Amino acid sequence: MPSKATSPADWARIARDRQATPTKPPGSLGVLEEIACRLAGMQRTETPVASPARVIVAAGDHGFVHRGVSPYPQAVTGQMVANFAGGGAAINALARAAGASVEVLVVGLANAAPEVPAREGVRVVHAQVALGTADAVEGPAMSPAQFDAAWSVGADAIDRAADEGVAVVALGEMGIGNTTAAAAVTAGLLDRPAEQVTGVGTGADAAMRARKVAVVEAMIARHGPQRSPLEWLRRVGGLEMAALAGAADRAHARGIAVVADGFISTAAIAAAVRARPQVAEVVFAGHRSSEPGHDVLLAALGLQPLLDLGLRLGEGSGAAAALPLLRAACAVHGEMATFASAGVERGS
Amino acid sequence: MPSKATSPADWARIARDRQATPTKPPGSLGVLEEIACRLAGMQRTETPVASPARVIVAAGDHGFVHRGVSPYPQAVTGQMVANFAGGGAAINALARAAGASVEVLVVGLANAAPEVPAREGVRVVHAQVALGTADAVEGPAMSPAQFDAAWSVGADAIDRAADEGVAVVALGEMGIGNTTAAAAVTAGLLDRPAEQVTGVGTGADAAMRARKVAVVEAMIARHGPQRSPLEWLRRVGGLEMAALAGAADRAHARGIAVVADGFISTAAIAAAVRARPQVAEVVFAGHRSSEPGHDVLLAALGLQPLLDLGLRLGEGSGAAAALPLLRAACAVHGEMATFASAGVERGS
Repeated sequence: MPSKATSPADWARIARDRQATPTKPPGSLGVLEEIACRLAGMQRTETPVASPARVIVAAGDHGFVHRGVSPYPQAVTGQMVANFAGGGAAINALARAAGASVEVLVVGLANAAPEVPAREGVRVVHAQVALGTADAVEGPAMSPAQFDAAWSVGADAIDRAADEGVAVVALGEMGIGNTTAAAAVTAGLLDRPAEQVTGVGTGADAAMRARKVAVVEAMIARHGPQRSPLEWLRRVGGLEMAALAGAADRAHARGIAVVADGFISTAAIAAAVRARPQVAEVVFAGHRSSEPGHDVLLAALGLQPLLDLGLRLGEGSGAAAALPLLRAACAVHGEMATFASAGVERGS
Repeated sequence: MPSKATSPADWARIARDRQATPTKPPGSLGVLEEIACRLAGMQRTETPVASPARVIVAAGDHGFVHRGVSPYPQAVTGQMVANFAGGGAAINALARAAGASVEVLVVGLANAAPEVPAREGVRVVHAQVALGTADAVEGPAMSPAQFDAAWSVGADAIDRAADEGVAVVALGEMGIGNTTAAAAVTAGLLDRPAEQVTGVGTGADAAMRARKVAVVEAMIARHGPQRSPLEWLRRVGGLEMAALAGAADRAHARGIAVVADGFISTAAIAAAVRARPQVAEVVFAGHRSSEPGHDVLLAALGLQPLLDLGLRLGEGSGAAAALPLLRAACAVHGEMATFASAGVERGS
C-alpha cells in the first residue's frame, strides 16, 4: 500500500494491480472486477466493502396528476410510505434479502401518510418541504427555496448514512405520476422529444400514454428553451427527484457509492451529474428498466446496467436487487488466495 | 391452497395468482416474478424458497490437453481443487457472499489434488472415476462404464443435497482444457461448425484458439455423424461434464432448481436436456459468459441469462453470483403485504 496514494484514481489503480495475483485468469471476472476497482477508488482503500448498504426512498407528489397520467390515485403515495414503514412493500422484501436498511424520505406528500410504526430496519424521516409540487404545465414545479430544501433532505440523508458507516446507497422513489416528471426531466436534459422518452409507467393504456406525452410536451413548451440541469429539474421535476439529486451529489463528496434504480431515480441522478460531472464517479446503474426513457439516460451517462430483468416498479427495487453484486465483487476482490499462497501454477 | 393442486404447472399457476394481490403494479417485478412461479412449480408450494443453496463444482481433466489448447498446465485442475477445499478460490468467495455451501466433486483428476483440509462450508467428495478422459481426438473420451459412473457422481450429489434440504444448486466445473470439450459437445448437440462455438477460454491467443478449433473439428470428424445427446457427451465431453449432466437430470426428479453457470456447465446441462426435455423445467441460466458458444447454447435452450457481466471464469462463479436473485424473487413473492392488508388503493 504505497503511502503516496491519494486520489481515487490512485486507489483504483492499486486495486487493479491487486487483481493480477488471485487464482483466476486475468480479467475473468469481468464487471465484478471493475466494480471492485471503482469502489476502491471511492473508498480510498485497496480492499473496498459494499456493506453496510442502505436503500433511500424519497417520496413526493406531483401537481400535474389531475391530468390523468397514472392509473393510481394520488393518495397511494402516502399509503405506500406507510407500507414502507410497516415493512410490507417490495422494497422492504428486497432490502431484507440484500441485508440493507431502508430509509424513507417524506419530502413532498400531498396527503399525509397513515401513521404506521416503523418496522425494524426501516427509518422514516419526516421532512416535508411542500404538499407536492405545483403543476409544472402551468409554472415551475418547485420554488427555488423548495428545490434547495428538497435537495438538502437528500444530502442530509447521505451525511447521516456516511456518519453511520454506510458504504453503498440504493436510491429509490415513490410518487404517483412521476414517470411523467422523469420523462420531462429527461427530454430537457438530453434534448429529446417527449415521444421518445415517455413510457407506460405503472400500467398506462394507449390513451393514458398519449396524455403523458402531451403533458410532457406542454411542460417543455412552458419551460423551454433549455436551461441549466438543476434549473430544469426544479421546473419540471419532483421534490423526491430533487432529494435524490442532492443525495447523489453529496454521495460523491462523502465517497459513498450510489446505485441508481430505474427511470425516475436515474433522471434525478442525471441532473446532478450534468450539473457536476464528477458525481458520475460514484454512480452505478442497478438495472435497465422497461421504461424507454431509462435506456436513453443510461446511454447518455455511459452506464452499463448491472441487471436487465424487466423490472418497472421503482421504490429502489432494481437497485436493491443489484446490491448483492457489489458485495460479490468485494468478496472476490478481498478474499481470494493468490497463486503463490494457494500453490497454483500460472498460465503461460 | 386448493387441495387438488398436484402438478408443478398447477402450483406455478397458484403462485401466479398470488402475485396479483401484493402492493405493486401487476407484472412490475418482471423476471423476478417468473423465477418465483417456476420455483413454486418445482417445489409444489405457493411460497417457494431459494435457500439453502449449494454450489456443486465437478472437476475433471481432459486427454487432449497435450494438443496445446490451454495456457495453463494440467496440474492446475488438482491445484484448484485444493484451493476450493481451502476456501481461497473465486467460487468460495462468491458462495460465501451468497450464503451458499460448496461441494467439490473430484471425478476425473489426472494428477492428485494436494491434500488440504476442507474449510467450513466446503465439502470435497472423492469420487474419481478415471485419471481424466482419454484423448477424444483418437477415440471416445469415456467408456460407457466411466460415463455412467461419472453421471452417478453428479446424481448422487443431488440426492445428498435434496436429503439435506437444499433448494437450489449452482452447477460449476473445473478442468484445464474443458472449453474445448464444451465446444465439441455444443457443436455436435446443435450441429454447429467448430468455428462458431469455440472461444478463447481462459485466455488463448489467436494461434491457440486456432488449435482449439482444429481439435474440435478433429473430434467431430472422428465421432460424427450425429449421435444421441448422451452418447455424444460420452465421446467428446469430460467426466466433470457427465457428472453435471447427471446432476441436472436428477435435480429434475428431486424438484431442485439448477442454476447453470457458463459454457461448460451449460453444455453439460444441454446434453441432459436434449436427452430428456423435461429437465429444462428446473434449469435457470445464471449468466451469459463471454464464450461465443455459450450464447448459442442459451438460445437453443430458450434460456434468458439472469446476469450478463462478462464473466468467463467457470467454477460456478456466474451461477453463484445469480443466486441472490432467486432469493430476492422468493422474498418479494412471499413477504409482501397485500393491497387490502396495507390499506393501499388499487389502480384503475
